[in-house]
Amino acid sequence: MEKWDSNEGTSAFHVPEWMQIQFADQKQEFNKRPTKIGRRSLSRSISQSSTDSYSSAASYTDSSDDETSPRDKQQKNSKGSSDFCVKNIKQAEFGRREIEIAEQEMPALMALRKRAQGEKPLAGAKIVGCTHITAQTAVLMETLGALGAQCRWAACNIYSTLNEVAAALAESGFPVFAWKGESEDDFWWCIDRCVNVEGWQPNMILDDGGDLTHWIYKKYPNMFKKIKGIVEESVTGVHRLYQLSKAGKLCVPAMNVNDSVTKQKFDNLYCCRESILDGLKRTTDMMFGGKQVVVCGYGEVGKGCCAALKAMGSIVYVTEIDPICALQACMDGFRLVKLNEVIRQVDIVITCTGNKNVVTREHLDRMKNSCIVCNMGHSNTEIDVASLRTPELTWERVRSQVDHVIWPDGKRIVLLAEGRLLNLSCSTVPTFVLSITATTQALALIELYNAPEGRYKQDVYLLPKKMDEYVASLHLPTFDAHLTELTDEQAKYLGLNKNGPFKPNYYRY
Amino acid sequence: MEKWDSNEGTSAFHVPEWMQIQFADQKQEFNKRPTKIGRRSLSRSISQSSTDSYSSAASYTDSSDDETSPRDKQQKNSKGSSDFCVKNIKQAEFGRREIEIAEQEMPALMALRKRAQGEKPLAGAKIVGCTHITAQTAVLMETLGALGAQCRWAACNIYSTLNEVAAALAESGFPVFAWKGESEDDFWWCIDRCVNVEGWQPNMILDDGGDLTHWIYKKYPNMFKKIKGIVEESVTGVHRLYQLSKAGKLCVPAMNVNDSVTKQKFDNLYCCRESILDGLKRTTDMMFGGKQVVVCGYGEVGKGCCAALKAMGSIVYVTEIDPICALQACMDGFRLVKLNEVIRQVDIVITCTGNKNVVTREHLDRMKNSCIVCNMGHSNTEIDVASLRTPELTWERVRSQVDHVIWPDGKRIVLLAEGRLLNLSCSTVPTFVLSITATTQALALIELYNAPEGRYKQDVYLLPKKMDEYVASLHLPTFDAHLTELTDEQAKYLGLNKNGPFKPNYYRY
Amino acid sequence: MEKWDSNEGTSAFHVPEWMQIQFADQKQEFNKRPTKIGRRSLSRSISQSSTDSYSSAASYTDSSDDETSPRDKQQKNSKGSSDFCVKNIKQAEFGRREIEIAEQEMPALMALRKRAQGEKPLAGAKIVGCTHITAQTAVLMETLGALGAQCRWAACNIYSTLNEVAAALAESGFPVFAWKGESEDDFWWCIDRCVNVEGWQPNMILDDGGDLTHWIYKKYPNMFKKIKGIVEESVTGVHRLYQLSKAGKLCVPAMNVNDSVTKQKFDNLYCCRESILDGLKRTTDMMFGGKQVVVCGYGEVGKGCCAALKAMGSIVYVTEIDPICALQACMDGFRLVKLNEVIRQVDIVITCTGNKNVVTREHLDRMKNSCIVCNMGHSNTEIDVASLRTPELTWERVRSQVDHVIWPDGKRIVLLAEGRLLNLSCSTVPTFVLSITATTQALALIELYNAPEGRYKQDVYLLPKKMDEYVASLHLPTFDAHLTELTDEQAKYLGLNKNGPFKPNYYRY
Amino acid sequence: MEKWDSNEGTSAFHVPEWMQIQFADQKQEFNKRPTKIGRRSLSRSISQSSTDSYSSAASYTDSSDDETSPRDKQQKNSKGSSDFCVKNIKQAEFGRREIEIAEQEMPALMALRKRAQGEKPLAGAKIVGCTHITAQTAVLMETLGALGAQCRWAACNIYSTLNEVAAALAESGFPVFAWKGESEDDFWWCIDRCVNVEGWQPNMILDDGGDLTHWIYKKYPNMFKKIKGIVEESVTGVHRLYQLSKAGKLCVPAMNVNDSVTKQKFDNLYCCRESILDGLKRTTDMMFGGKQVVVCGYGEVGKGCCAALKAMGSIVYVTEIDPICALQACMDGFRLVKLNEVIRQVDIVITCTGNKNVVTREHLDRMKNSCIVCNMGHSNTEIDVASLRTPELTWERVRSQVDHVIWPDGKRIVLLAEGRLLNLSCSTVPTFVLSITATTQALALIELYNAPEGRYKQDVYLLPKKMDEYVASLHLPTFDAHLTELTDEQAKYLGLNKNGPFKPNYYRY
Repeated sequence: MEKWDSNEGTSAFHVPEWMQIQFADQKQEFNKRPTKIGRRSLSRSISQSSTDSYSSAASYTDSSDDETSPRDKQQKNSKGSSDFCVKNIKQAEFGRREIEIAEQEMPALMALRKRAQGEKPLAGAKIVGCTHITAQTAVLMETLGALGAQCRWAACNIYSTLNEVAAALAESGFPVFAWKGESEDDFWWCIDRCVNVEGWQPNMILDDGGDLTHWIYKKYPNMFKKIKGIVEESVTGVHRLYQLSKAGKLCVPAMNVNDSVTKQKFDNLYCCRESILDGLKRTTDMMFGGKQVVVCGYGEVGKGCCAALKAMGSIVYVTEIDPICALQACMDGFRLVKLNEVIRQVDIVITCTGNKNVVTREHLDRMKNSCIVCNMGHSNTEIDVASLRTPELTWERVRSQVDHVIWPDGKRIVLLAEGRLLNLSCSTVPTFVLSITATTQALALIELYNAPEGRYKQDVYLLPKKMDEYVASLHLPTFDAHLTELTDEQAKYLGLNKNGPFKPNYYRY
Repeated sequence: MEKWDSNEGTSAFHVPEWMQIQFADQKQEFNKRPTKIGRRSLSRSISQSSTDSYSSAASYTDSSDDETSPRDKQQKNSKGSSDFCVKNIKQAEFGRREIEIAEQEMPALMALRKRAQGEKPLAGAKIVGCTHITAQTAVLMETLGALGAQCRWAACNIYSTLNEVAAALAESGFPVFAWKGESEDDFWWCIDRCVNVEGWQPNMILDDGGDLTHWIYKKYPNMFKKIKGIVEESVTGVHRLYQLSKAGKLCVPAMNVNDSVTKQKFDNLYCCRESILDGLKRTTDMMFGGKQVVVCGYGEVGKGCCAALKAMGSIVYVTEIDPICALQACMDGFRLVKLNEVIRQVDIVITCTGNKNVVTREHLDRMKNSCIVCNMGHSNTEIDVASLRTPELTWERVRSQVDHVIWPDGKRIVLLAEGRLLNLSCSTVPTFVLSITATTQALALIELYNAPEGRYKQDVYLLPKKMDEYVASLHLPTFDAHLTELTDEQAKYLGLNKNGPFKPNYYRY
Repeated sequence: MEKWDSNEGTSAFHVPEWMQIQFADQKQEFNKRPTKIGRRSLSRSISQSSTDSYSSAASYTDSSDDETSPRDKQQKNSKGSSDFCVKNIKQAEFGRREIEIAEQEMPALMALRKRAQGEKPLAGAKIVGCTHITAQTAVLMETLGALGAQCRWAACNIYSTLNEVAAALAESGFPVFAWKGESEDDFWWCIDRCVNVEGWQPNMILDDGGDLTHWIYKKYPNMFKKIKGIVEESVTGVHRLYQLSKAGKLCVPAMNVNDSVTKQKFDNLYCCRESILDGLKRTTDMMFGGKQVVVCGYGEVGKGCCAALKAMGSIVYVTEIDPICALQACMDGFRLVKLNEVIRQVDIVITCTGNKNVVTREHLDRMKNSCIVCNMGHSNTEIDVASLRTPELTWERVRSQVDHVIWPDGKRIVLLAEGRLLNLSCSTVPTFVLSITATTQALALIELYNAPEGRYKQDVYLLPKKMDEYVASLHLPTFDAHLTELTDEQAKYLGLNKNGPFKPNYYRY
Repeated sequence: MEKWDSNEGTSAFHVPEWMQIQFADQKQEFNKRPTKIGRRSLSRSISQSSTDSYSSAASYTDSSDDETSPRDKQQKNSKGSSDFCVKNIKQAEFGRREIEIAEQEMPALMALRKRAQGEKPLAGAKIVGCTHITAQTAVLMETLGALGAQCRWAACNIYSTLNEVAAALAESGFPVFAWKGESEDDFWWCIDRCVNVEGWQPNMILDDGGDLTHWIYKKYPNMFKKIKGIVEESVTGVHRLYQLSKAGKLCVPAMNVNDSVTKQKFDNLYCCRESILDGLKRTTDMMFGGKQVVVCGYGEVGKGCCAALKAMGSIVYVTEIDPICALQACMDGFRLVKLNEVIRQVDIVITCTGNKNVVTREHLDRMKNSCIVCNMGHSNTEIDVASLRTPELTWERVRSQVDHVIWPDGKRIVLLAEGRLLNLSCSTVPTFVLSITATTQALALIELYNAPEGRYKQDVYLLPKKMDEYVASLHLPTFDAHLTELTDEQAKYLGLNKNGPFKPNYYRY
């Protein structure tokens, strides 16, 4: 992982791109529960959404009114083990069915399992994990198991655990410590039960948000001596790792899988291209044709939103601070404006900047009647929603996730999801996107675990390009896509290995 | 991809991306004139094309039948100087008009001149340049002059000099040594006259192809002691610099401006999106609607070609070797196939891979009657044109740049530009694209010349992102595009300087 | 309304285009309730959908467990009138609010009201209407009132009445006879109460489905002597009128507003372009990018579906029986295939033909696992759903409107809305589309009522182009669109009246 | 639109749609040669363009300096016939090769020939034709021959005849009377030689512009007794036929093939979608990305232009007078403006209205420097070019078809083709489009010739839909497109004949 030779020397380290890209609702959460659920990534919100989604939701058996804390229960799985703590081990069968459905939609992980029938790339790995516990995560965990790893797992969010899935995992022998509706104390207790076990010392960490890593740093710093690496999935967790690294305190290699090419393109460009339409339709039933829309920010998310709306017949304006992205917007056929220039005339305002107060009260005051305002960008900071909580404005909840804010003269602004992420609040994340994330995590674990001494130092790394390419290649069969292979002569001509990597690190895709 | 590890950390340097991207016809040229004109970049071809283009061509006064070599002539400009060598100083007035027209279309450089009225960022700079000598280059040179630099200039191609422009530059005091139709000996003589002057020692190099740099290395290695840096524009020249660097022989900082974001996007994605249509129409007058097309390669060039043809109603198939680009093709709505799967059915085959023998004789044998074959990728290697030079096939030149290759059974293949680059052979490069290139060069010179001691080592650098952003910002007024500025509060929140750079180096745009 | 000179003479009258376009679920309904609710148009389904939509639904007060039949109740409005029959006159206030919200989204009707402040184009008109009774219809009725008409109204569907809206209309003096959940006897009783009133003889009919017209034909044929015309909105009703006309039994002019240009484009092309995406997302949360889709039929509905899916990155195949539409599909960039050629490979099958058994059991047997099958075309005939009701197949309802049909080998087909119209079952119809329909109805009434003697014979007419243009012009302000006016000189040059109509009747738009 | 009625039923005949659609440069021509070449259609310009195109041009042998008038020459073909008059019968071989190349690109006519091997639908037909004489026309004529017809032919334009093709036709026995550069007297002499022959009385007319028809009306009115019908191709000729019909003077059936669906879509939407880009590129080498464009008129031509430019990244504004087309523009994502609103900011102005003085001097005065102005619509009336011929403006011809008009302050407007049709002046018409036209003509002749007594009266007819569908179906194999056939059950359900026609006449496609 060479250095990015250039002007890094002269510019201070600044908040990296992933802070600008979407997902993490941390700010918002901090206000509510400052200590631990405050720093969460995409996956938390995803899993919340996914409880409403396709394969499951309605049929879930969660209406148990069993109020006993799982910590106070004595449960055993059918093989007699009690090394787990879940809501109700009897829900295992239902959870198993959910996992089986998810398996069908995650062919890449299933392909990994098949390839691992011969060699076990994770043989000897002892992975402690802290992620959302959903059917998709279960497919990941059981894949890690099939690849040779032993795993212990806690939830990275106190609400997102699907109890049935946790039960199914426990039943099939995974020490899982998680249930829906943990208290803060429960949360740390579960993590501790994963880490602090007699006769079992983890050598790999899979984290989502950084809480697990933080706990080990704080309580068991010596444990890092045997740990070969950390794989971190979330924006927030990655940010914390970079801070550790800058402070010289990172004592093992860490892999930032959030910024891998494949994951980024799917989380942002491809996913948002669809979810902007979905989110707007589900909340407002509006027609896109002929509508005037301003999209603030032309990063991957903005690009996806603009392309989709343009294709549906909307007239799209773009605002940008970065002249390169601005020039891209021009070449893609969008008028580049300042927000003030169009705020009086647009029908929809969409923020995708990662910035704060992009839409201010002053903008809101100038919008026309019925203007729709929503956020696809980052957390809930982009629209200054707080500024709308003033006495002269009336809020009217007209539908789930839809508020009318009414001005004294009768003007109504339609605010979606109270300024939180539209795509996570009002649409769903396709399993295909989750599959890419989970495969990326699995490969990062394999890479770090098998890397020869010295390949990785005590630093934060991006996923090696070859692994990134491998994630992509595992998803091609879904599209019946046929990759061309280089001939020997061509590989030599290009100076490439026939199996990749095929691009230099600075390639932009 | 069978092994469970990646070779990225340890991988040997491989042929970089720019070999895969288009432009340099070097291979082809090597065969013809192995010594020096063999290694040329985009600009040569561009300038050739541009002689056919909009502002000029027809009216050029070049039909002089003066056969005397410029080296044997005694010429003086109106101020009495004879420190130049051009075809005919009397053509200066005509050349000046050409330069003035070009100035109108290169607002970014003109803006730079204006900004330089106060400070002269190149005061003291002594730049020796070796590029194509066209009206656009003249605007660049006179801009460098306005910024405070002294310049001496030679041509990087024996054919591409516009004599009138060279005369105009000489008339206004630039020591220019170049004319159309130099011999090989002339070529090196001109370069030497730029470098080897009493009382003038260059401290900056602007090169296009690496010949100037090579000459100084060979003849005047000590000169590098005073040289602050090299700016190199071409694929080939950059390749040579990386080789020098790898060999530990690069003794000054060098800047690879070929791979700057803005330049790449315009040279490849945006320019090719338009030129694929233009090149096909001008050569074949075909209708795009309903045509089946296979595009080999889904890099920036392939993406541009696919988007344009899809928009015009063609049905587009894509071939790829890189699974990440392949997945992008899928998500963008293209069937990913192997060439063999569709070769019998397609109406058009377009190569954009940077590879060799992508289209083989076997493929050509299987194409259907009237299939059009052309290359947008790299040099003339992608289509195995040589394999068509066999006795049983008849070649019929039906139009400039269009050959029918006729099989014994009467089947005709329509081969464009004999497999050379379609966009350079059969369409033109808009001045806007040349403006971006020239501005990038100017800013790279300013950066290297003004960089504090130690910022740049003896290595090859990409253009600093801030400069890249600046190039973009200078071109925004063309589109009446209005950039948004960060507030202090926002800049602080994002951890950014209000003036940029706005993205981390690994940002992919 | 000139004759369409051409081959009409030689071709027998065939089922017109509107049978091919979507909407009417009549076949399906016939099976359930053969007598009267069997012949319904778009609006019925629309209104059903709209009860789930934006402005209302959740807050409706409909949970009244009052089981008394409205026919048995004595109700008076605040002005003392009891010439109506609704569920509960006390719900009027709530209904009024719904109507006010709808008014905001139907600017065209509101503009008509304004223009009518001077002259009353419907002064003297006595309109008997039979349509769905929704907030949008109420805006239409009150507009007709503002234009000078007296109205009496019944529901065209036993389920679709919004009781609160009916109450509000009754409260403001409209004799409305309708409630949700009428019996068949109630249905005809309500219609009769509109028609058969002492001292009130209708002179205009506004029908949706033809039941009202049918009732008058059967019971009060003499009434037609004073009736100036019928305006019919639905596919089914129009079909019945053409049959009457062919049989020589149509005794007043009738206007087919279903086939007006503006209405057709919005009901089909523009509306379906959006609702195909919406319907698929809401039911399956699928990702469109890279999916292979076959769309059966390339009429307006098919064109809308194809354009939307292509824009979202799907690979779209088209089947067609009509060579002209087929050639359009080619030129628009879609592979034209027979269903059998692609049925094994596609991820989604969408029918938009208006035909029956387009997707047969044989096709269904050959689809791949997880293939999604849905209908955007006509009724529920296009997919042979009945063929799936065999013992070896298992049906699993996984979600509202989503069934998995499971083959003995485990293959699952995802069937949406049991083959009924996806856009009506699983998405919503924007108010903007309903506004166009209602405005078209109002203008058709005005035209027929004011037409000079002899302009219209006892035949079925399309809406005059000028009226069609007027509907469009009333909706332009929504988009802040500015129409250009012809100068006198230009109008003369073109031989046009400055106010239109602007196109000959055969113009295709 | 203030009155509450429509004038459609009663409206006087107004200038039909085809006056609004493009092509005919008649106005312009009238000024030059008022008598006969003044009324010409697309084909003339097409054939002019086609001399520059793909298959031919450069190699033509036309540089003969033989100044003898063909009328004064004695020529015989190899079979001894002298019933023709062409420039030089010896050029026949070259012309034959041109015809053979055209045959390859006109598969529909070749398919017609094959089908005619059994029956000869034109057996006994004696067709007198007056069209442009090009390789494509020759393929049509020889197809008519193969179908059983005898033909005599003259040119409809004094300049457009390709002498070699005329020679080849004469050599193979077609009595052709035409050469390039006829005088006006020659023109009528040639026509007369086709009509006025002993022992040969035409029974069918194929006309392009109406001159042949006019001549027979004037000179040999009795001839119409035996004539079964007229097929007219051009806008102008059709207009003259409608005038005859209105005046009650049309004494045989006539078929307007100009307005058939297939021909219209290809001449306008599909062809212009491509030629707008082609015409702009060839003349200006401009980049489309980011450019602001205003397109005046949103008919088929405007729709094509807008779609293409939007796809290439331009920002497109639309002006319209017709509210329906205006609403379509809105729904397709274009801002609908008045020209004045955007005239100061746009980079390109394109007229597609069919109107006159759409762009006035006042508009031109307000355009910004370097604005490009061109016409895709109708004749040369749309841009008031005459207003630019004033002393204070300087015209500078910078390239073929490109003028700079320079204002006193130095502002330059780039005027293309002096306001004539860009697509005919500066790009070419693909053979595929010509193939559709020629096939339409052949089928119209077959229909009229074979129609049973009484099917056609003395009126102007559109091509029967079934024939229109047949033209389309003959072109589907080019795209390897596979049409679906109705089952008997489906045909019955739809009330359709399995072989079409598939749509009612008012269907809009």
